[in-house]
Amino acid sequence: MARDLNRLLEPRSVAVVGASPKAGSVGGTILDNLRACGFSGSLHPVNPKYEEVLGVPCVPAISDLPPEVDLAILAINRNIVLRAVEECGKKGIANLVIITAGFKESGEEGAKLEEELRTLIDRYGLNVVGPNCMGIINSSERMRLNASFSRWFPPGGEIAFVSQSGSLGETLLECFEDAGLGVSRFVNLGNRAGLTENDFLAHLAGDDACRAVFLYLESFADPCEFRRLVTSIGKPVVVLKAGRTVAGAAAVASHTGSLASPDAIVDAFLHQSGVLRVSTIEETLTALRALERGVLPAGDRVAILTNAGGAGIIAADACVQSGLEVPPLSDRLRDGLAAFLPPEAGLGNPVDMIATASSEHYERGLELLLEEADAAIVIFRPPLVFHEPVEAVGAGIARVAEAQPGKPVLVCTLSHAATVEPLVAKLREAEVPTYAMPETAVAALSILRRARELRHPDRSEAAAEASDRAAAAAVLDRVRREGRTGLFFDEGAEVLAAYGIPVCPYAYLSNIDEGAAFLANVGSPLALKIDAPDLAHRFEWDAVITGIGTETELGDAFNRLQGVMNSLNLDGPRLLIQKMIAGRELIFGLEQDPTFGPAVMFGVGGTLVEALKDVSFGVAPISERQAERMLRSIRAFPLLEAFRGQPAVAIPPLVRIVVALGRMGLDFPEIAEIDLNPVIADEHGAVAVDLLIRLSEE
Amino acid sequence: MARDLNRLLEPRSVAVVGASPKAGSVGGTILDNLRACGFSGSLHPVNPKYEEVLGVPCVPAISDLPPEVDLAILAINRNIVLRAVEECGKKGIANLVIITAGFKESGEEGAKLEEELRTLIDRYGLNVVGPNCMGIINSSERMRLNASFSRWFPPGGEIAFVSQSGSLGETLLECFEDAGLGVSRFVNLGNRAGLTENDFLAHLAGDDACRAVFLYLESFADPCEFRRLVTSIGKPVVVLKAGRTVAGAAAVASHTGSLASPDAIVDAFLHQSGVLRVSTIEETLTALRALERGVLPAGDRVAILTNAGGAGIIAADACVQSGLEVPPLSDRLRDGLAAFLPPEAGLGNPVDMIATASSEHYERGLELLLEEADAAIVIFRPPLVFHEPVEAVGAGIARVAEAQPGKPVLVCTLSHAATVEPLVAKLREAEVPTYAMPETAVAALSILRRARELRHPDRSEAAAEASDRAAAAAVLDRVRREGRTGLFFDEGAEVLAAYGIPVCPYAYLSNIDEGAAFLANVGSPLALKIDAPDLAHRFEWDAVITGIGTETELGDAFNRLQGVMNSLNLDGPRLLIQKMIAGRELIFGLEQDPTFGPAVMFGVGGTLVEALKDVSFGVAPISERQAERMLRSIRAFPLLEAFRGQPAVAIPPLVRIVVALGRMGLDFPEIAEIDLNPVIADEHGAVAVDLLIRLSEE
Repeated sequence: MARDLNRLLEPRSVAVVGASPKAGSVGGTILDNLRACGFSGSLHPVNPKYEEVLGVPCVPAISDLPPEVDLAILAINRNIVLRAVEECGKKGIANLVIITAGFKESGEEGAKLEEELRTLIDRYGLNVVGPNCMGIINSSERMRLNASFSRWFPPGGEIAFVSQSGSLGETLLECFEDAGLGVSRFVNLGNRAGLTENDFLAHLAGDDACRAVFLYLESFADPCEFRRLVTSIGKPVVVLKAGRTVAGAAAVASHTGSLASPDAIVDAFLHQSGVLRVSTIEETLTALRALERGVLPAGDRVAILTNAGGAGIIAADACVQSGLEVPPLSDRLRDGLAAFLPPEAGLGNPVDMIATASSEHYERGLELLLEEADAAIVIFRPPLVFHEPVEAVGAGIARVAEAQPGKPVLVCTLSHAATVEPLVAKLREAEVPTYAMPETAVAALSILRRARELRHPDRSEAAAEASDRAAAAAVLDRVRREGRTGLFFDEGAEVLAAYGIPVCPYAYLSNIDEGAAFLANVGSPLALKIDAPDLAHRFEWDAVITGIGTETELGDAFNRLQGVMNSLNLDGPRLLIQKMIAGRELIFGLEQDPTFGPAVMFGVGGTLVEALKDVSFGVAPISERQAERMLRSIRAFPLLEAFRGQPAVAIPPLVRIVVALGRMGLDFPEIAEIDLNPVIADEHGAVAVDLLIRLSEE
Repeated sequence: MARDLNRLLEPRSVAVVGASPKAGSVGGTILDNLRACGFSGSLHPVNPKYEEVLGVPCVPAISDLPPEVDLAILAINRNIVLRAVEECGKKGIANLVIITAGFKESGEEGAKLEEELRTLIDRYGLNVVGPNCMGIINSSERMRLNASFSRWFPPGGEIAFVSQSGSLGETLLECFEDAGLGVSRFVNLGNRAGLTENDFLAHLAGDDACRAVFLYLESFADPCEFRRLVTSIGKPVVVLKAGRTVAGAAAVASHTGSLASPDAIVDAFLHQSGVLRVSTIEETLTALRALERGVLPAGDRVAILTNAGGAGIIAADACVQSGLEVPPLSDRLRDGLAAFLPPEAGLGNPVDMIATASSEHYERGLELLLEEADAAIVIFRPPLVFHEPVEAVGAGIARVAEAQPGKPVLVCTLSHAATVEPLVAKLREAEVPTYAMPETAVAALSILRRARELRHPDRSEAAAEASDRAAAAAVLDRVRREGRTGLFFDEGAEVLAAYGIPVCPYAYLSNIDEGAAFLANVGSPLALKIDAPDLAHRFEWDAVITGIGTETELGDAFNRLQGVMNSLNLDGPRLLIQKMIAGRELIFGLEQDPTFGPAVMFGVGGTLVEALKDVSFGVAPISERQAERMLRSIRAFPLLEAFRGQPAVAIPPLVRIVVALGRMGLDFPEIAEIDLNPVIADEHGAVAVDLLIRLSEE
């Protein structure tokens, strides 16, 4: 159930506790901001030392506030925050913004204070932003509220911005203003003792003034809830998540006391949630500008129309580097263009109309190109000699763009100069975005393409395979009862089988004759290994012999491993025999990520995965579509395709393994890790040849 | 011998042929630019239709010009350009800028005209810029010359800018002005019928007004000469080379009629030349700003000092993503910082001094950090409450930076606002660069790091291995005399041996007994293959049998390949036998790139190289250092290191193969391609197991 944040964001009356007329006082600055922004409700400074602050009558205490106060801003000494919160609770002021710092972020004592604060929040059912925050802003037509000490008050718009960091939040507000981006709501979450990004996501889902949500996050308050909310929010969610690398993650840890997850898992989690992740401030601006105005392209085919050859080349290069296609023109299009362009024009893609191109050339050229392309980048640099007003070019482009509402058209002027301003203005009327640099236009188009791919987040649970949770639970219960954390191979095989993951046939040998029978039955080559729940890496202990072809070799191997077995101090070791099978070597794994829970890993096996660290991740639950994307996202994926006479590996069996591992992780949080290494796959299916399942200690 | 371009760039007197008072006339615009820029010499419009143009007395013909004219700008109809050039030649005007378009870029007729133009240039020994260009600019203190129709006249500075494209050149001039970058010379090369980038590089090497050179190129006029010039120029050369991708390359081809080379070879060529390659306009600006002001860091260790946590994290992330290190602080430094920072400060790296940090904190903190780091990124966002003028922070940072002249300090303000201007100004005095965004500061630092690596371009010829050019020549002569382009294995082995590349021992078998003897001699396993100069891909024709262990298997293989040999219509086929050897499988190749000449390729062999296309290139000549870098630059390089019990592959033998292949390509341009696939390498050395050498057809 979403919390009711309407009175927090649209209060009738606001109290500023700790407002003071002293220069540089945070409370005074907030009071000043509230007055300056055009807030239409009543304001009440609270401060026992003053009769009035900045001309506004002051009350000595929270208990003296009038009953209509919906929101109290606390900008007071840390030591009196809890008392003030309690007073607000008693007074029935349900919405609080706690600016004061010195809580969790400042050490043990602060963390204890924050715990007490949480207790009060729960007791009185308060909506609390902060502590340690910059405040909140509402910049809609209905309500203008600057309950923050930000020096920037955005001009209003349709983007809601929720920031974990205050200073970065203010920096971004400044950037948004420079970029002409309209922000409707700004919230600096601070320490999130009360409200989190999830509360605001739930609120923004039903907020008509919000067309897209942007979050700057350093950690997730509740990733599971975040995923559920984003998947169903129905509007683009852009996330700038800091801590992508180990160094960054270390800084996050010391900054907010949160634990950052390995970035590959964060990436998988955000993508699976349907979030458009950006990685720099620059990319954030490009993404939000594109999403604010843009149409999403139906496909990847880009046409480039230019009157400046070099810039066309740069745009084409940038397109291909971003994975967009710049296909050659059809003969029909070339003929169509040749009919009105001068013979010097280049009729490739880019179409170089040369410097003499007129507004009519632009209009007709773009019209033709959009017949075959999914999107167009139009480069117009006003040439020295241009016999028309530049806005004529803009008007022509705008007409074509409006006639083709499903195809993004991005215009690039190669200049910020005054000469291009009328063109930019004309295009803005038609919501056609303009950029100075071709690379930025391409970056914007590439973001629109990613947004298209994310538009329908995958809400489908993977089709339920016949999984026998009870059978797996029985095995795991037995293991735990026996006080073990490791599983024997046969136990692991039983658990995997319960989730439909096939395991390569095997048998335990108590004597050499059973081996001979196995060999006679299934043929060679065979592998013989020592199995024990506390033997994790067989190869390192010489506990595996492969390539056994004959009964004699089997006898030798049997004796040798008996020797190894005796030399190692293992828990109930046994000898296990398997037929060796041919195919492509893969690796699958499951781990419990401290933030995101069960995470499934996939890689191409053997030396490759170790040397190249070329693996992909998925966070459970994983849909079939997500699993397939995960498989395809490793660099070495071409090794699984038809290759040197070998047919392509069948993908659906691999998808089933990924989905099943994810489900096992959710069903049994006590499973600390699973390693299926190798899994051997061919054109028919995939089987786990070796396996390791380990339960957590407690 | 460098051409004398002094009078071209610093003429005493300039003629503008085709100047006209009509609005939008190119010649008139140039005359106007020449007057407006403050050119101190005399100006002479040439036009039979006017007595004067824009108030400047006009002469009817080139022959009427006074003798002191050093430079003529031609902005006339294409059909009269050749006549005008001839007149200039006769008159002794040695320097020309031909603005007029309609030459090579416009089709066959124009190309013919340009050929005739080249003849005239040679006949009269002219310095010609263009045709089809925007002109040239000199913006030094000594001479202000805007002999172009550019609407931007740079304010002067120490960067020389040579652009193949006119429109992009003008765009960049505008960007440079916005970024506050000073340009001393600007040349738009146009079609390069006369002067090329190489002529200007030769000139700029001795030009004291030039501290760094920036080139925008779509193709190279003479790559070999370019490399020679850049290697010895002694100042940073930054190149924005368009046509990185296939789509871009297609556009370059239609734009300038030049053939773009596969981008990996371009990259290798530029790096080997010591060029700092940039790939976007944005990166160009960052690079030039960094090089204009910056010191190069001695190492990769970066310290980050901030009063805004989130921005510190973003900077740390960006550092690590660029390959810079953000190492943890030593205990000594942590203690030193803890002595004066508040307890809430984060003493990791980034050091988060929190919003209360003073100018003294910045100065002392930076001083400490630079004791251990090679460079520092300092983030200062003026907080709401700051009790000092912001320039005090700038002054402190500047003092530390000046005391540590070998360590780059980059400052980031998180804002463009007026509040930070005094800080920026204070830092500019000390040549400490400032940036709004942390990612840009990191990008700049990363460029300085690349510049450091390129600072000493590798002029060393690789140590001359004992190579026997004559022996190889004798083999190739024989092959050519026999009318073949393909070589037999033994011929190839002889050529490789002449350059010190070892080949796996082999023998030809005329009967089965010879095979038995070979087996007895060297042991198993053996490989038997058909050898013929016109059999390129043995595996595809079932012309190889591997893993032969016994005499019987050898007999079977012999008979089977005899059958294959008879079924294929080959040129003198023979059966060849080799011992199969174990080790890491590599691939080396040589091809003749149409632009850059002999290019050596390296990859890890087997299925990997085919599936992942993970190869690197070097353009001959290749020094040993360059060869080693080339080997290390493939993604799969970890596969060659110590791994799963195998020792690391020895690198010097691989370096020798790369260097030798490059030298063979230079010695014998008639070698169209060499494939050494596989080369088997181990901890001792590397031998070619199979080889293919093909000569070009003519």
